[in-house]
Amino acid sequence: MRPVYIVGIGQTPVGEHWERSLRHIAHDAVIPALRDAGVERVDALYVGNMLSGELVGQEHVGALVADFVGLRGIEAYKIEAACGSGGAALRTGYMAVAGGLHDVVVVAGVEKMTDTIGKDTTAGLAMAADQEFEAAEGVSFVALNALLMRRYMYEFEVPHAAFGHFAVNAHHNAAGNPNAMFKSPISLETYRKATMIADPINLMDSSPICDGAAAVVLASEPVARALRNGRRPVRIAASSVGTDSLAVHDRRDPMKLEAAWISSHKAYQQAGVTIDDIDLFELHDAFTIMAALSLEACGYAERGRGVWLAEEGEITIEGRVPVATMGGLKARGHPVGATGVYQVVEATLQLQGLAGRNQVRDANIAMTQNIGGSGATVATHILVGE
Amino acid sequence: MRPVYIVGIGQTPVGEHWERSLRHIAHDAVIPALRDAGVERVDALYVGNMLSGELVGQEHVGALVADFVGLRGIEAYKIEAACGSGGAALRTGYMAVAGGLHDVVVVAGVEKMTDTIGKDTTAGLAMAADQEFEAAEGVSFVALNALLMRRYMYEFEVPHAAFGHFAVNAHHNAAGNPNAMFKSPISLETYRKATMIADPINLMDSSPICDGAAAVVLASEPVARALRNGRRPVRIAASSVGTDSLAVHDRRDPMKLEAAWISSHKAYQQAGVTIDDIDLFELHDAFTIMAALSLEACGYAERGRGVWLAEEGEITIEGRVPVATMGGLKARGHPVGATGVYQVVEATLQLQGLAGRNQVRDANIAMTQNIGGSGATVATHILVGE
Repeated sequence: MRPVYIVGIGQTPVGEHWERSLRHIAHDAVIPALRDAGVERVDALYVGNMLSGELVGQEHVGALVADFVGLRGIEAYKIEAACGSGGAALRTGYMAVAGGLHDVVVVAGVEKMTDTIGKDTTAGLAMAADQEFEAAEGVSFVALNALLMRRYMYEFEVPHAAFGHFAVNAHHNAAGNPNAMFKSPISLETYRKATMIADPINLMDSSPICDGAAAVVLASEPVARALRNGRRPVRIAASSVGTDSLAVHDRRDPMKLEAAWISSHKAYQQAGVTIDDIDLFELHDAFTIMAALSLEACGYAERGRGVWLAEEGEITIEGRVPVATMGGLKARGHPVGATGVYQVVEATLQLQGLAGRNQVRDANIAMTQNIGGSGATVATHILVGE
Repeated sequence: MRPVYIVGIGQTPVGEHWERSLRHIAHDAVIPALRDAGVERVDALYVGNMLSGELVGQEHVGALVADFVGLRGIEAYKIEAACGSGGAALRTGYMAVAGGLHDVVVVAGVEKMTDTIGKDTTAGLAMAADQEFEAAEGVSFVALNALLMRRYMYEFEVPHAAFGHFAVNAHHNAAGNPNAMFKSPISLETYRKATMIADPINLMDSSPICDGAAAVVLASEPVARALRNGRRPVRIAASSVGTDSLAVHDRRDPMKLEAAWISSHKAYQQAGVTIDDIDLFELHDAFTIMAALSLEACGYAERGRGVWLAEEGEITIEGRVPVATMGGLKARGHPVGATGVYQVVEATLQLQGLAGRNQVRDANIAMTQNIGGSGATVATHILVGE
């Protein structure tokens, strides 16, 4: 397999883009990424998206976006793995370049969740869960995560307030990210007083419903070397996807994100690194409980101890394992099918020293982890600045 | 890149499977394919599907199917390119093995279009078209194809009856396929008298709404050689995807399937073949007009002449370019996201001499072509019996 480089990145601000349709939002990320890369030719486009059918009434977004960004004719299709769609699309683009099938590909993630008259976003998100055994019983996606959080609090004797540090950290970092949806820091007091959504998940435990798109241009080593534009080369040192049951009740241990364990440990092996080598970790904090479980599955904490990393200050930009360095899903926002690509765009900015006031010092190796459903599909990527 | 072999195939009968849900139908194709291959290990599963979200209320079918067929943990996600989803999924599986990322992968296509209470299948299918510029104006997917057919009849002075030979051939061949939805032959008289759906497309110009799943197991050469089970080895000699605008009105020449031209001509080059070398062509006869346009785009006929190949008997099993040899989309059935994989399963049976009374004599090279929308995504594969 050949080395794969990230040679261009693009992103739209995350928010409610009432005036821009799905194709426009995708365009607003892909065109800057192509300009950033300065490539003359693109071989393929892989689009990560979850809800275009349900919320926009539009499938077939691979060809749609390819055409709209001026790439009509090239290979293009959509990749879907619920909220893990962006990470799975990146995996596809990585395979195409690493395997020698293409030299230059674009991976875009896009989601349009507002301006969906007559559509039910909550029902749409529940399609990430098991329709026949979870959603059909009336449980929403937030409620499933609430069950996990409640179990965690009970089994490990954790007070709700302990999760607040994840939200405080995310909002603190989002304040330094011009593309974040929420730019106001919050306090632990704000967290404690936040409106309850699905007990014990409150508004500050949850990522928002929003629109956004992000894109990366991947290239083979010869193409990447020819392009050198003064930016630090960033190589994808590992790319892996693992799965688990959709239904949480089908898991041997609902407190272990088995797919995250599989995916991250494969990635460590492929990249030849341990967690001590990783300078920042863009994890999937769709809910604060997911952040805690991810840290545990990836080996940063023992079972039931992930939440305490946040309280101990380990997850800040200066900490041992900086997470959500640009605001994370919680505060940058979570346009579901785009999130996995946003994570990679942000990690690339960190490795290139372009993260502004959120810069992690001496960042050389970054990990991104994108989760579909309540842990049923997990895509992990490790990026190395060269 | 490494050679890629088809080492196992599976399919369900196509029809209305009211008693089987999406996951069961997928299971019923994947398990036979795995048994057929006799592999001990699978590295990844790629699922082609278009409408699970809209019609079943279930996204995230990659992990869902992986778990349900006993492959929990492996890499799995869904590929979507409207009715071309199956072909695009095969492209992904091909890349994974050809590129050396995986040794054994399963590619499945599945669609559940019946038993969808409260869902609108016609609106779902219209998501293959451009939502903002076509579907939102009220045009259905059948109507778009009717516009193409009307234009073809006008521009090339073709009577409607000329298209009937495509339908007669498809039904004739389906009668010899135990997995086909319609097993009764029809006459030209039946075609002429069929109920009008969207003028000039009548019931016999159209493929049916149905359920079904098909699966193939792909493997690298060393794995394929170790498995040899007396069956003829079938190699994927070419795999390519091309695109065009979703909206038909955006095309320079709506009578030319540009993406089919791109995709097929790339495939000829990759496989090192011309159309004269190809012994059968599983084309995408979702509507008879699509069959005519595909034959032209792939070089079998001049512009406006594709329809006459059917009348001249060239498309029968004994003809110069046998199409729909197991019934095609028209009569085997068109469970949209599964169709591209059915085509490959059927072509493999032909190359292995297992097509029964539908056997194309001395079949050594087969082409399959799967189309998304009205030609916006086209996946072409060329298979060679060794």
